[in-house]
Amino acid sequence: MEKLNSLKNLFVHEIQDLYSAELQLTKALPKVAAKATSPELKNAVEEHLAQTEEHVSRLEQVFHLLGEEPTELTCKAMKGLIKEAKDILKEEASPETRDAAIIAAAQKVEHYEIASYGTVAKWADVIGRNDIKQLLGQTLDEEEKADRRLSELAEAGINQRAAAYRAEEKELTE
Amino acid sequence: MEKLNSLKNLFVHEIQDLYSAELQLTKALPKVAAKATSPELKNAVEEHLAQTEEHVSRLEQVFHLLGEEPTELTCKAMKGLIKEAKDILKEEASPETRDAAIIAAAQKVEHYEIASYGTVAKWADVIGRNDIKQLLGQTLDEEEKADRRLSELAEAGINQRAAAYRAEEKELTE
Repeated sequence: MEKLNSLKNLFVHEIQDLYSAELQLTKALPKVAAKATSPELKNAVEEHLAQTEEHVSRLEQVFHLLGEEPTELTCKAMKGLIKEAKDILKEEASPETRDAAIIAAAQKVEHYEIASYGTVAKWADVIGRNDIKQLLGQTLDEEEKADRRLSELAEAGINQRAAAYRAEEKELTE
Repeated sequence: MEKLNSLKNLFVHEIQDLYSAELQLTKALPKVAAKATSPELKNAVEEHLAQTEEHVSRLEQVFHLLGEEPTELTCKAMKGLIKEAKDILKEEASPETRDAAIIAAAQKVEHYEIASYGTVAKWADVIGRNDIKQLLGQTLDEEEKADRRLSELAEAGINQRAAAYRAEEKELTE
Protein backbone atom coordinates (compact mmCIF):
# COMPACT_ATOMS: atom_id res chain seq x y z
CA MET A 1 0.00 0.00 0.00
CA GLU A 2 0.94 3.64 -0.36
CA LYS A 3 3.17 5.02 2.38
CA LEU A 4 1.38 6.85 5.16
CA ASN A 5 3.40 10.00 4.67
CA SER A 6 0.46 12.37 4.77
CA LEU A 7 -2.80 12.81 6.62
CA LYS A 8 -4.57 12.50 3.27
CA ASN A 9 -3.15 8.98 2.74
CA LEU A 10 -4.02 7.99 6.30
CA PHE A 11 -7.51 9.38 5.72
CA VAL A 12 -8.02 7.23 2.60
CA HIS A 13 -6.69 4.21 4.53
CA GLU A 14 -9.25 4.81 7.28
CA ILE A 15 -12.11 5.25 4.79
CA GLN A 16 -11.17 1.91 3.20
CA ASP A 17 -11.23 0.30 6.66
CA LEU A 18 -14.67 1.81 7.37
CA TYR A 19 -15.94 0.66 3.98
CA SER A 20 -14.96 -2.90 4.88
CA ALA A 21 -16.50 -2.51 8.35
CA GLU A 22 -19.86 -1.33 6.99
CA LEU A 23 -19.95 -4.06 4.32
CA GLN A 24 -19.25 -6.71 6.98
CA LEU A 25 -22.14 -5.29 9.00
CA THR A 26 -24.62 -5.46 6.13
CA LYS A 27 -23.96 -9.23 6.09
CA ALA A 28 -24.04 -9.73 9.87
CA LEU A 29 -27.05 -7.62 10.89
CA PRO A 30 -29.77 -9.80 9.28
CA LYS A 31 -28.50 -12.76 11.36
CA VAL A 32 -28.58 -10.65 14.50
CA ALA A 33 -32.14 -9.44 13.78
CA ALA A 34 -33.24 -13.06 13.33
CA LYS A 35 -31.95 -13.92 16.82
CA ALA A 36 -33.70 -11.05 18.62
CA THR A 37 -36.86 -11.82 20.58
CA SER A 38 -38.13 -8.38 21.58
CA PRO A 39 -40.03 -6.91 18.60
CA GLU A 40 -38.64 -3.44 19.40
CA LEU A 41 -35.07 -4.77 19.33
CA LYS A 42 -35.67 -6.71 16.11
CA ASN A 43 -37.09 -3.54 14.61
CA ALA A 44 -34.14 -1.42 15.79
CA VAL A 45 -31.64 -3.85 14.25
CA GLU A 46 -33.56 -4.00 10.96
CA GLU A 47 -33.77 -0.23 10.75
CA HIS A 48 -30.06 -0.03 11.47
CA LEU A 49 -29.41 -2.43 8.61
CA ALA A 50 -31.20 -0.02 6.23
CA GLN A 51 -29.08 2.83 7.64
CA THR A 52 -25.91 0.77 7.23
CA GLU A 53 -26.67 0.35 3.53
CA GLU A 54 -27.00 4.13 3.36
CA HIS A 55 -23.63 4.49 5.13
CA VAL A 56 -22.03 2.23 2.52
CA SER A 57 -23.27 4.44 -0.31
CA ARG A 58 -22.18 7.59 1.55
CA LEU A 59 -18.65 6.12 1.77
CA GLU A 60 -18.83 5.41 -1.98
CA GLN A 61 -19.65 9.10 -2.46
CA VAL A 62 -16.59 9.97 -0.33
CA PHE A 63 -14.36 7.77 -2.53
CA HIS A 64 -15.82 9.52 -5.57
CA LEU A 65 -15.14 12.98 -4.10
CA LEU A 66 -11.55 11.89 -3.39
CA GLY A 67 -11.16 10.64 -6.95
CA GLU A 68 -10.55 7.10 -5.67
CA GLU A 69 -12.14 3.75 -6.51
CA PRO A 70 -14.16 2.27 -3.58
CA THR A 71 -11.75 -0.26 -2.07
CA GLU A 72 -12.07 -2.42 1.02
CA LEU A 73 -9.18 -2.81 3.43
CA THR A 74 -10.30 -5.70 5.66
CA CYS A 75 -11.31 -4.18 8.98
CA LYS A 76 -9.87 -6.66 11.47
CA ALA A 77 -11.45 -4.89 14.40
CA MET A 78 -14.96 -5.30 12.94
CA LYS A 79 -14.12 -8.92 12.13
CA GLY A 80 -13.31 -9.46 15.81
CA LEU A 81 -16.42 -7.61 16.97
CA ILE A 82 -18.66 -9.71 14.71
CA LYS A 83 -16.92 -12.96 15.70
CA GLU A 84 -17.47 -12.12 19.36
CA ALA A 85 -21.15 -11.37 18.70
CA LYS A 86 -21.62 -14.62 16.76
CA ASP A 87 -19.95 -16.63 19.55
CA ILE A 88 -22.28 -15.27 22.18
CA LEU A 89 -25.34 -15.81 19.97
CA LYS A 90 -24.34 -19.46 19.60
CA GLU A 91 -24.52 -20.03 23.36
CA GLU A 92 -27.63 -21.54 24.86
CA ALA A 93 -29.44 -18.62 26.42
CA SER A 94 -32.85 -17.53 27.60
CA PRO A 95 -34.52 -15.19 25.05
CA GLU A 96 -34.33 -12.32 27.54
CA THR A 97 -30.62 -12.80 28.19
CA ARG A 98 -29.92 -13.15 24.49
CA ASP A 99 -31.63 -9.81 23.83
CA ALA A 100 -29.44 -8.18 26.50
CA ALA A 101 -26.36 -9.79 24.87
CA ILE A 102 -27.40 -8.51 21.42
CA ILE A 103 -27.68 -4.96 22.76
CA ALA A 104 -24.24 -5.21 24.40
CA ALA A 105 -22.63 -6.49 21.18
CA ALA A 106 -24.41 -3.91 19.03
CA GLN A 107 -23.30 -1.06 21.27
CA LYS A 108 -19.68 -2.18 20.93
CA VAL A 109 -20.09 -2.07 17.16
CA GLU A 110 -21.71 1.39 17.37
CA HIS A 111 -18.84 2.64 19.51
CA TYR A 112 -16.28 1.36 17.02
CA GLU A 113 -18.05 3.34 14.35
CA ILE A 114 -18.47 6.43 16.53
CA ALA A 115 -14.70 6.46 17.16
CA SER A 116 -13.88 5.91 13.47
CA TYR A 117 -16.33 8.39 12.00
CA GLY A 118 -15.38 10.90 14.71
CA THR A 119 -11.75 10.60 13.60
CA VAL A 120 -12.33 10.80 9.83
CA ALA A 121 -14.77 13.72 10.19
CA LYS A 122 -12.05 15.65 12.06
CA TRP A 123 -9.39 14.70 9.50
CA ALA A 124 -11.66 15.76 6.61
CA ASP A 125 -11.83 19.17 8.26
CA VAL A 126 -8.04 19.39 8.69
CA ILE A 127 -7.37 18.48 5.06
CA GLY A 128 -9.89 21.14 4.01
CA ARG A 129 -12.64 18.89 2.65
CA ASN A 130 -15.77 20.32 4.19
CA ASP A 131 -17.96 18.52 1.61
CA ILE A 132 -16.65 15.15 2.83
CA LYS A 133 -16.84 16.23 6.46
CA GLN A 134 -20.58 16.89 6.04
CA LEU A 135 -21.21 13.39 4.68
CA LEU A 136 -19.20 11.69 7.42
CA GLY A 137 -20.80 13.88 10.09
CA GLN A 138 -24.27 12.72 8.98
CA THR A 139 -23.30 9.08 9.48
CA LEU A 140 -21.66 9.90 12.82
CA ASP A 141 -24.94 11.45 14.03
CA GLU A 142 -26.87 8.35 12.98
CA GLU A 143 -24.45 6.02 14.76
CA GLU A 144 -24.74 8.08 17.95
CA LYS A 145 -28.54 8.00 17.71
CA ALA A 146 -28.51 4.23 17.15
CA ASP A 147 -26.33 3.80 20.25
CA ARG A 148 -28.70 5.91 22.38
CA ARG A 149 -31.71 3.97 21.09
CA LEU A 150 -30.06 0.70 22.17
CA SER A 151 -29.40 2.14 25.64
CA GLU A 152 -33.06 3.17 25.87
CA LEU A 153 -34.26 -0.29 24.84
CA ALA A 154 -32.02 -1.89 27.48
CA GLU A 155 -33.22 0.49 30.18
CA ALA A 156 -36.88 0.37 29.11
CA GLY A 157 -37.19 -3.31 29.98
CA ILE A 158 -34.80 -5.72 28.30
CA ASN A 159 -32.26 -5.70 31.15
CA GLN A 160 -35.04 -5.97 33.73
CA ARG A 161 -36.66 -8.87 31.88
CA ALA A 162 -33.29 -10.64 31.63
CA ALA A 163 -32.84 -10.27 35.39
CA ALA A 164 -36.49 -11.14 36.19
CA TYR A 165 -36.31 -14.34 34.18
CA ARG A 166 -33.72 -15.61 36.61
CA ALA A 167 -35.77 -14.50 39.61
CA GLU A 168 -38.84 -16.41 38.37
CA GLU A 169 -36.79 -19.47 37.63
CA LYS A 170 -35.33 -19.35 41.12
CA GLU A 171 -38.81 -19.13 42.65
CA LEU A 172 -39.82 -22.26 40.70
CA THR A 173 -36.84 -24.26 41.86
CA GLU A 174 -36.92 -23.10 45.47
CA MET B 1 -19.26 -22.68 29.43
CA GLU B 2 -22.24 -22.12 31.65
CA LYS B 3 -25.50 -21.45 29.84
CA LEU B 4 -26.44 -17.80 29.51
CA ASN B 5 -29.78 -18.28 31.17
CA SER B 6 -29.52 -15.28 33.47
CA LEU B 7 -28.25 -11.73 33.40
CA LYS B 8 -25.85 -12.71 36.18
CA ASN B 9 -24.20 -15.35 33.98
CA LEU B 10 -24.04 -12.95 31.07
CA PHE B 11 -22.52 -10.37 33.41
CA VAL B 12 -19.75 -12.77 34.49
CA HIS B 13 -19.12 -13.65 30.83
CA GLU B 14 -18.69 -9.96 29.99
CA ILE B 15 -16.35 -9.36 32.94
CA GLN B 16 -14.19 -12.28 31.74
CA ASP B 17 -14.11 -10.72 28.27
CA LEU B 18 -13.10 -7.34 29.73
CA TYR B 19 -10.43 -9.00 31.88
CA SER B 20 -8.90 -10.49 28.73
CA ALA B 21 -9.21 -7.13 26.91
CA GLU B 22 -7.40 -5.21 29.65
CA LEU B 23 -4.65 -7.83 29.94
CA GLN B 24 -4.10 -7.70 26.17
CA LEU B 25 -3.79 -3.93 26.45
CA THR B 26 -1.15 -4.07 29.19
CA LYS B 27 1.00 -5.98 26.70
CA ALA B 28 0.25 -3.80 23.67
CA LEU B 29 0.47 -0.29 25.14
CA PRO B 30 4.25 -0.24 25.80
CA LYS B 31 4.81 -0.99 22.08
CA VAL B 32 2.45 1.81 21.12
CA ALA B 33 4.18 4.29 23.47
CA ALA B 34 7.54 3.38 21.91
CA LYS B 35 6.21 4.30 18.45
CA ALA B 36 4.84 7.72 19.45
CA THR B 37 6.86 10.81 18.52
CA SER B 38 5.01 13.62 20.29
CA PRO B 39 6.16 13.67 23.95
CA GLU B 40 2.61 14.53 25.06
CA LEU B 41 1.21 11.52 23.23
CA LYS B 42 3.92 9.19 24.55
CA ASN B 43 3.13 10.47 28.01
CA ALA B 44 -0.63 9.98 27.57
CA VAL B 45 -0.14 6.38 26.42
CA GLU B 46 2.25 5.63 29.30
CA GLU B 47 -0.14 7.08 31.85
CA HIS B 48 -2.95 5.06 30.33
CA LEU B 49 -0.85 1.93 30.72
CA ALA B 50 -0.59 2.62 34.47
CA GLN B 51 -4.39 3.13 34.56
CA THR B 52 -4.95 -0.10 32.62
CA GLU B 53 -3.02 -2.02 35.28
CA GLU B 54 -5.33 -0.44 37.83
CA HIS B 55 -8.35 -1.52 35.74
CA VAL B 56 -7.05 -5.10 35.77
CA SER B 57 -6.89 -5.14 39.54
CA ARG B 58 -10.34 -3.53 39.79
CA LEU B 59 -11.72 -6.38 37.66
CA GLU B 60 -9.98 -8.84 40.01
CA GLN B 61 -11.83 -7.16 42.88
CA VAL B 62 -15.09 -7.61 40.93
CA PHE B 63 -14.38 -11.33 40.50
CA HIS B 64 -13.69 -11.54 44.22
CA LEU B 65 -16.96 -9.76 45.08
CA LEU B 66 -18.80 -12.21 42.79
CA GLY B 67 -17.11 -15.17 44.49
CA GLU B 68 -15.47 -16.16 41.19
CA GLU B 69 -11.87 -16.87 40.21
CA PRO B 70 -10.40 -14.26 37.81
CA THR B 71 -10.70 -15.95 34.40
CA GLU B 72 -9.95 -14.66 30.94
CA LEU B 73 -12.33 -15.31 28.06
CA THR B 74 -10.29 -14.28 25.00
CA CYS B 75 -11.68 -10.95 23.84
CA LYS B 76 -11.67 -11.37 20.06
CA ALA B 77 -12.74 -7.79 19.50
CA MET B 78 -9.70 -6.44 21.38
CA LYS B 79 -7.53 -8.92 19.50
CA GLY B 80 -8.83 -7.42 16.23
CA LEU B 81 -8.39 -3.85 17.48
CA ILE B 82 -4.78 -4.51 18.51
CA LYS B 83 -4.00 -6.35 15.27
CA GLU B 84 -5.33 -3.40 13.29
CA ALA B 85 -3.21 -0.98 15.35
CA LYS B 86 -0.09 -3.12 14.90
CA ASP B 87 -0.67 -3.32 11.13
CA ILE B 88 -0.86 0.43 10.78
CA LEU B 89 2.20 0.98 12.97
CA LYS B 90 4.17 -1.35 10.70
CA GLU B 91 3.54 0.88 7.67
CA GLU B 92 6.16 3.37 6.60
CA ALA B 93 4.85 6.70 7.81
CA SER B 94 5.98 10.19 8.68
CA PRO B 95 6.26 10.65 12.48
CA GLU B 96 3.40 13.17 12.39
CA THR B 97 1.09 10.84 10.49
CA ARG B 98 2.01 7.94 12.74
CA ASP B 99 1.02 9.97 15.80
CA ALA B 100 -2.35 10.73 14.19
CA ALA B 101 -2.76 7.00 13.45
CA ILE B 102 -1.90 6.09 17.05
CA ILE B 103 -4.57 8.46 18.36
CA ALA B 104 -7.16 7.01 15.97
CA ALA B 105 -6.35 3.42 17.02
CA ALA B 106 -6.29 4.33 20.71
CA GLN B 107 -9.69 6.05 20.50
CA LYS B 108 -11.19 2.92 18.95
CA VAL B 109 -9.85 0.92 21.89
CA GLU B 110 -11.21 3.48 24.36
CA HIS B 111 -14.62 3.32 22.69
CA TYR B 112 -14.66 -0.47 22.93
CA GLU B 113 -14.05 -0.14 26.64
CA ILE B 114 -16.56 2.69 27.07
CA ALA B 115 -19.26 0.50 25.47
CA SER B 116 -18.30 -2.54 27.59
CA TYR B 117 -17.94 -0.80 30.93
CA GLY B 118 -21.13 1.17 30.21
CA THR B 119 -22.97 -2.13 29.72
CA VAL B 120 -21.58 -3.96 32.76
CA ALA B 121 -22.09 -0.94 35.03
CA LYS B 122 -25.79 -0.92 34.05
CA TRP B 123 -26.08 -4.69 34.50
CA ALA B 124 -24.44 -4.50 37.94
CA ASP B 125 -27.17 -2.05 38.90
CA VAL B 126 -29.96 -4.31 37.56
CA ILE B 127 -28.66 -7.36 39.44
CA GLY B 128 -28.52 -5.24 42.61
CA ARG B 129 -24.73 -5.05 43.04
CA ASN B 130 -24.13 -1.40 43.76
CA ASP B 131 -20.68 -2.18 45.20
CA ILE B 132 -19.59 -3.63 41.84
CA LYS B 133 -21.31 -0.85 39.91
CA GLN B 134 -19.17 1.72 41.76
CA LEU B 135 -15.93 -0.04 40.79
CA LEU B 136 -16.92 -0.39 37.15
CA GLY B 137 -18.20 3.20 37.04
CA GLN B 138 -14.78 4.47 38.20
CA THR B 139 -13.06 2.70 35.30
CA LEU B 140 -15.73 3.94 32.87
CA ASP B 141 -15.00 7.54 33.96
CA GLU B 142 -11.28 7.02 33.40
CA GLU B 143 -11.80 5.55 29.93
CA GLU B 144 -14.01 8.50 28.97
CA LYS B 145 -11.38 10.95 30.27
CA ALA B 146 -8.63 9.13 28.33
CA ASP B 147 -10.73 9.37 25.16
CA ARG B 148 -11.28 13.12 25.63
CA ARG B 149 -7.56 13.66 26.29
CA LEU B 150 -6.72 11.92 23.00
CA SER B 151 -9.20 14.17 21.15
CA GLU B 152 -7.58 17.22 22.74
CA LEU B 153 -4.09 16.07 21.73
CA ALA B 154 -5.26 15.54 18.15
CA GLU B 155 -6.94 18.94 18.01
CA ALA B 156 -4.12 20.75 19.83
CA GLY B 157 -1.67 20.10 17.02
CA ILE B 158 -1.08 16.48 16.03
CA ASN B 159 -3.64 16.51 13.20
CA GLN B 160 -2.42 19.90 12.00
CA ARG B 161 1.21 18.76 12.06
CA ALA B 162 0.31 15.60 10.11
CA ALA B 163 -1.43 17.74 7.49
CA ALA B 164 1.32 20.42 7.47
CA TYR B 165 4.03 17.83 6.88
CA ARG B 166 2.43 17.07 3.54
CA ALA B 167 2.06 20.75 2.69
CA GLU B 168 5.79 21.40 3.29
CA GLU B 169 6.76 18.35 1.31
CA LYS B 170 4.60 19.56 -1.58
CA GLU B 171 6.25 22.97 -1.53
CA LEU B 172 9.65 21.31 -1.80
CA THR B 173 8.66 19.19 -4.77
CA GLU B 174 6.75 21.90 -6.65
